Amino acid sequence: MKYFSKQNIKELNHLFKINLIDSCSGFKSANLIGTQDNLGKTNVAIFSSVIHMGSEPPVFGVLFRPTSVPRNTYEKIKQTGFYTINHIYEAIIEDAHHTSAKYSKEQSEFDVTTLEKEFKNKFNAPFVKYCPIQIGLKYLEEYYIKVNDTILVVGEIQALYIDDKLLLDDGFIDLSTGKVVAINGLDGYVKTNLIDRLNYQRTKAITPFN
Amino acid sequence: MKYFSKQNIKELNHLFKINLIDSCSGFKSANLIGTQDNLGKTNVAIFSSVIHMGSEPPVFGVLFRPTSVPRNTYEKIKQTGFYTINHIYEAIIEDAHHTSAKYSKEQSEFDVTTLEKEFKNKFNAPFVKYCPIQIGLKYLEEYYIKVNDTILVVGEIQALYIDDKLLLDDGFIDLSTGKVVAINGLDGYVKTNLIDRLNYQRTKAITPFN
Repeated sequence: MKYFSKQNIKELNHLFKINLIDSCSGFKSANLIGTQDNLGKTNVAIFSSVIHMGSEPPVFGVLFRPTSVPRNTYEKIKQTGFYTINHIYEAIIEDAHHTSAKYSKEQSEFDVTTLEKEFKNKFNAPFVKYCPIQIGLKYLEEYYIKVNDTILVVGEIQALYIDDKLLLDDGFIDLSTGKVVAINGLDGYVKTNLIDRLNYQRTKAITPFN
Repeated sequence: MKYFSKQNIKELNHLFKINLIDSCSGFKSANLIGTQDNLGKTNVAIFSSVIHMGSEPPVFGVLFRPTSVPRNTYEKIKQTGFYTINHIYEAIIEDAHHTSAKYSKEQSEFDVTTLEKEFKNKFNAPFVKYCPIQIGLKYLEEYYIKVNDTILVVGEIQALYIDDKLLLDDGFIDLSTGKVVAINGLDGYVKTNLIDRLNYQRTKAITPFN
């Protein structure tokens, strides 16, 4: 196996280092976050830092890296308190990836891609039309992460839309059937196939033969 | 599309709700965290809450849910300050999933599964042998998340081992080639195929024809 010590990593060139470290946490969710400001100016941007934080209440986190990425999305969330999370599927990966370009806050990525905004049920932020999963969230709280000047924003689900054919009887959403992709590193997009769902696990006795 | 309001979600039965909300954040990383206490008692447990938080310095987060999961892993990290993150690959999903059973802190999951511990380079926590990516981390800081009593532990990479055939010339780690899996919801495991790596994106001009 190839080995990197802490010191080896520190001395790597920048691009190699961000490819390496961004890949080595494992697969990440692939989402578009939709926002608008108080004047109705919309924004949509790709994020791989959306995390499930809990189901009761239903809360998700998003990590913002203000030092490396324009803060348009973060600023709009702080203005209105609302945002949407929409899942990226195979057919839109190029447009979704393009939203990572550094547009000014006066420009809407909805105007430079084929991504379409969708407003519904009076929710105060744009969903991305045709995404198989669309989630409307309300800002709850945030945490400033000291070690690297990032901000973890925590929001609660207010509205959830799911393509009917992905939703199973027990609440499981089959993301693979929806062609939802995952992200590998900074720029890799993968498609998936469900191997199996495994049962709830109980302890087994430890015998001398184990 | 199937629609759930905040109130609909609140009134769902517990199992349906956790399946639904745990699936709807998108794919999650699939990792085994290895620890030992000050007496050398080892532990290995599955986590789907490992997140990349930054590359400079190289830091990852892990979200712990103390109210729903035994805190063996968290307590051992706090005792020694060290832990390992190891990627789950197709051949070990059943054993990895079994580590979710609620064993007491006196029992090591290494003794009830075929997972093997591996100590190397004097790192003060066990790696999981044969995993294509093995990462040694040092505890840095933690954040208490008020809304749901969870704890985000932030650690810095001290040592990184990667199967040679996954590492590309620019630092990208091809997780699909390593048969690294991702998690869908509470209990779904997926295999992946790399669709493409996309280029760094620059803005394009907005014309009247866009």
